[in-house]
Amino acid sequence: MHPLLLRLRGVIPPLVTPFREDGAVDLPAFERNLAAYAAAPLAGYLVLGSNGEACALDEAEKVDLVRAARRGAGDRPVLAGTGLESTRGTIALTCRAADAGADAALVVTPHYFKSQLTADALIRHFEAIADASPIPVLLYSVPANTGLALPAPVAIRLAAHPNVIGLKESSGDMGFLNRVLGTAPELGFLCGSAGAFYPALCAGATGGVLAVACAAPEITCALHAAAARGDHDRARSLQRTLMPLAAAVTTAHGVPGLKAAMDLAGYAGGFPRAPLAPVSEAVREELRAALALARSAID
Amino acid sequence: MHPLLLRLRGVIPPLVTPFREDGAVDLPAFERNLAAYAAAPLAGYLVLGSNGEACALDEAEKVDLVRAARRGAGDRPVLAGTGLESTRGTIALTCRAADAGADAALVVTPHYFKSQLTADALIRHFEAIADASPIPVLLYSVPANTGLALPAPVAIRLAAHPNVIGLKESSGDMGFLNRVLGTAPELGFLCGSAGAFYPALCAGATGGVLAVACAAPEITCALHAAAARGDHDRARSLQRTLMPLAAAVTTAHGVPGLKAAMDLAGYAGGFPRAPLAPVSEAVREELRAALALARSAID
Amino acid sequence: MHPLLLRLRGVIPPLVTPFREDGAVDLPAFERNLAAYAAAPLAGYLVLGSNGEACALDEAEKVDLVRAARRGAGDRPVLAGTGLESTRGTIALTCRAADAGADAALVVTPHYFKSQLTADALIRHFEAIADASPIPVLLYSVPANTGLALPAPVAIRLAAHPNVIGLKESSGDMGFLNRVLGTAPELGFLCGSAGAFYPALCAGATGGVLAVACAAPEITCALHAAAARGDHDRARSLQRTLMPLAAAVTTAHGVPGLKAAMDLAGYAGGFPRAPLAPVSEAVREELRAALALARSAID
Amino acid sequence: MHPLLLRLRGVIPPLVTPFREDGAVDLPAFERNLAAYAAAPLAGYLVLGSNGEACALDEAEKVDLVRAARRGAGDRPVLAGTGLESTRGTIALTCRAADAGADAALVVTPHYFKSQLTADALIRHFEAIADASPIPVLLYSVPANTGLALPAPVAIRLAAHPNVIGLKESSGDMGFLNRVLGTAPELGFLCGSAGAFYPALCAGATGGVLAVACAAPEITCALHAAAARGDHDRARSLQRTLMPLAAAVTTAHGVPGLKAAMDLAGYAGGFPRAPLAPVSEAVREELRAALALARSAID
Repeated sequence: MHPLLLRLRGVIPPLVTPFREDGAVDLPAFERNLAAYAAAPLAGYLVLGSNGEACALDEAEKVDLVRAARRGAGDRPVLAGTGLESTRGTIALTCRAADAGADAALVVTPHYFKSQLTADALIRHFEAIADASPIPVLLYSVPANTGLALPAPVAIRLAAHPNVIGLKESSGDMGFLNRVLGTAPELGFLCGSAGAFYPALCAGATGGVLAVACAAPEITCALHAAAARGDHDRARSLQRTLMPLAAAVTTAHGVPGLKAAMDLAGYAGGFPRAPLAPVSEAVREELRAALALARSAID
Repeated sequence: MHPLLLRLRGVIPPLVTPFREDGAVDLPAFERNLAAYAAAPLAGYLVLGSNGEACALDEAEKVDLVRAARRGAGDRPVLAGTGLESTRGTIALTCRAADAGADAALVVTPHYFKSQLTADALIRHFEAIADASPIPVLLYSVPANTGLALPAPVAIRLAAHPNVIGLKESSGDMGFLNRVLGTAPELGFLCGSAGAFYPALCAGATGGVLAVACAAPEITCALHAAAARGDHDRARSLQRTLMPLAAAVTTAHGVPGLKAAMDLAGYAGGFPRAPLAPVSEAVREELRAALALARSAID
Repeated sequence: MHPLLLRLRGVIPPLVTPFREDGAVDLPAFERNLAAYAAAPLAGYLVLGSNGEACALDEAEKVDLVRAARRGAGDRPVLAGTGLESTRGTIALTCRAADAGADAALVVTPHYFKSQLTADALIRHFEAIADASPIPVLLYSVPANTGLALPAPVAIRLAAHPNVIGLKESSGDMGFLNRVLGTAPELGFLCGSAGAFYPALCAGATGGVLAVACAAPEITCALHAAAARGDHDRARSLQRTLMPLAAAVTTAHGVPGLKAAMDLAGYAGGFPRAPLAPVSEAVREELRAALALARSAID
Repeated sequence: MHPLLLRLRGVIPPLVTPFREDGAVDLPAFERNLAAYAAAPLAGYLVLGSNGEACALDEAEKVDLVRAARRGAGDRPVLAGTGLESTRGTIALTCRAADAGADAALVVTPHYFKSQLTADALIRHFEAIADASPIPVLLYSVPANTGLALPAPVAIRLAAHPNVIGLKESSGDMGFLNRVLGTAPELGFLCGSAGAFYPALCAGATGGVLAVACAAPEITCALHAAAARGDHDRARSLQRTLMPLAAAVTTAHGVPGLKAAMDLAGYAGGFPRAPLAPVSEAVREELRAALALARSAID
């Protein structure tokens, strides 16, 4: 098992990118969040993930954010989302992210040409990136956004590459997790679905990259700690209490919901970038209640 | 919690319907399987499930199978799949299944008129059935077959009905499980996905209705027992070892794969009903290897 | 080209099954509709289609409806929907429908075991049915309900069977139509999508089985007549005027919408069978407006 | 109707981007294709479309390609694909494409945050772009790649914007076409599905943006010409003959198939950019046969 994986045992928030009302990146707000997160026992950070609105950023903004994450992360590891549709572009961005201080690259499956992205094409893509990358690579499967699920045999095959150290899976598919870890137990497995976090930890996941952790880092860390020390009753209870908030900031209201929950929790969510729009006042009230419920679990 | 649920804590095989080569139901073979299953510590049986090819049976065949299951089940509970597209038809079949000895009805979501099956329509459907049914009702969501996932709020709402005692969920969606049990912890939750069985048990599932249990009852029971006594390492290990067989008899090769694995394991799989066809010799070899691997875990 | 196909050149309404409020089939209402339809230049009738709520009927009801359709159809051909999940069951029902007077069978793709219904399985299924059926067979693909699209190569292969005379395709996929008719031009092609009716006729479709024709037979017949005599401007104009009504009685409001529109148009829609429910008063007003607009095109 | 639309009546190939084996853009090859296309009666060109592998290009490459397209297009109009996930990024690229000589922008729906891209979000996005763009805007819906279909009511609403002059729809959905043109007949409608081209022209489409036109411009132009002069028999026949090639270079083998067919037809397809890979020799033979069949129609 790669040494970096030992440091990823826990909760990793996928950092949001706060925007100003005029649409510019609000880098000071991004830095304030990192400073605030230092108080929680988080394992590391992901910058440029789906919740970081990476698909809406240009390359210069991306590099600036990696640099800022590295500066603000202290001694915690920084993962950077560097996946683009082309192998060539992904390699170039991975190298720039490494230069800017990323400890590892999280590479989403390409997906625009769905019907042509066979197992062979995906293997070729990730192997070329892992060959070229100066930093370790984690695969990233997020079918709700991409419409493409990384097949278990592809993940198992890529686990043999010395520079592929793990993956993030965001649909919460336990069959995938159990198949992959059954054959490639040394692979780091980051659960990207808050609703599957405790079950995934039971089944052997290394940690979680959870949107809800951006708004409620303490409860997600408490959940991980309970599972890690074998306190299953407590972990199960925390998992259940977390559900309304977790569902609200992902499937129900997406990044705008997450940003609003962060604002309510005292972090800097900021504006989403259009075409995403801030949530309504009614949703904000729903989020306020879900946040209060989640927090009640750790008071 | 309904007293029947206490008896469903464990593994419930969804009994296959063995057919003769001419397509007729092979009732003696069905009965031999029940006799053989008596040796394993199974919690009960499901007759007329998806793996029982219920969709390919006529009503007389269905009633005969419920009766035979009741006769062969000893003192173990028998669940019967009675869901049809219409509320009226489902109620009629549920009453006949109850008369034939079923202890509870498992009612799949209707699904043909997908776009009209709103939350309200589903609630109306299941409430009318639960009102009319002489036996307790469990909801059944199996989106891989139906193209329709029971929404968590619908399950939560129906949990308030005194005659709805539980549900079976076959996609392995942990977020659904955690949302439902977080709000309705008294509901029985049967995991219908072998790949999610151990994680689901950790999260509070009552038991599992697992196709693979028809071919390998001992290993699935061993997995449940390990989880029930808190031996998480053993449960995790059994879960992983089970995966190749579980994947082969569901997503990869379906009911024909399950029937072939049963034949190889000494049970009576028999022929599937056309248009399903027996697996090829190559698939049979793959199943033989997966079965041997799964069995090695409990030797 | 089979002689029956010559008689199917035109519009075929998929007859709805009117139910009474208590859920029983209202056969007199069904018969009144047939009597009323005699005034429009329809090419024939489909009984037991998706819009006939065939999935919610039992076998005795089905046979009664075929018999009633035959009685009320005069010298127009009657197609009967006889597809079930099993080959065996479909053959039995097809024979009963033939005995009851159906001129041809419309056989929907089986679909519950989606992942196992390969091209080979579908070919085997339809060939066995066509071999056994005393009446000609038409294939039926309706992915919005079944989640399974008949592949063009399967349709082309089945066109070689002497008892497979045509097909109905309800998604409006023009590429499918052009591929199939490009290779098997003798196959009857019934367009099952009102929104694609005129384009499909241009491309060589034989006729259309259109839900909207149950509520507005005259305008759909006028559209067909215009296309048949080469009056493309008129056909195009009628097609466009029909769209709001066509969309309302299919994707938007389904069978309940169609039944309400029939009631408004002076036919007997009746109640849908639960879990489908009558439309709201607001939808009824929307349907009234769409109906008035559609009728304005032929005044 | 906008004057530019009068010039788009016909066939518009979505220009491929030929790459060298090392992955660099082969601009001379791109220019040779434009020179060769001058011999066919094409209506214009699309640069940076899906088939142009726009998702795999960086911004500098995109601008160079627009400039080269403008130079090589003679007096034919050049459409440029400028859609990105963010409104802000799309506006910036649209302005650069306009500066580089594009006559209009084709803006694909954003799609990464599927669940948040409501009708309101899409309207806001396209209105902001149309407000800011110095050139006319066409909407672009391609659900096979994006997993998101532009809803008809959104297209109808956006038709009211003076700078939205049309749209390209690539699924071939005739119901969408008929609904949109029934309400907004002044909107330019470009059919993006070769399998639906002739039916779409009958129903009122302005023209077609057809991948297959890159490899077989003459037959697609002949099809359009036949339809335009009312020779429906000839158009229908050409449409059918075109199908095997059209299916091969889109759904079956994608951009690599299209590029191979172009090479076989004497154009410069070049390499696709990884992770796409050149087709196998077997596919090349299939394409050779399909190309010969298509060409036989116009000899």
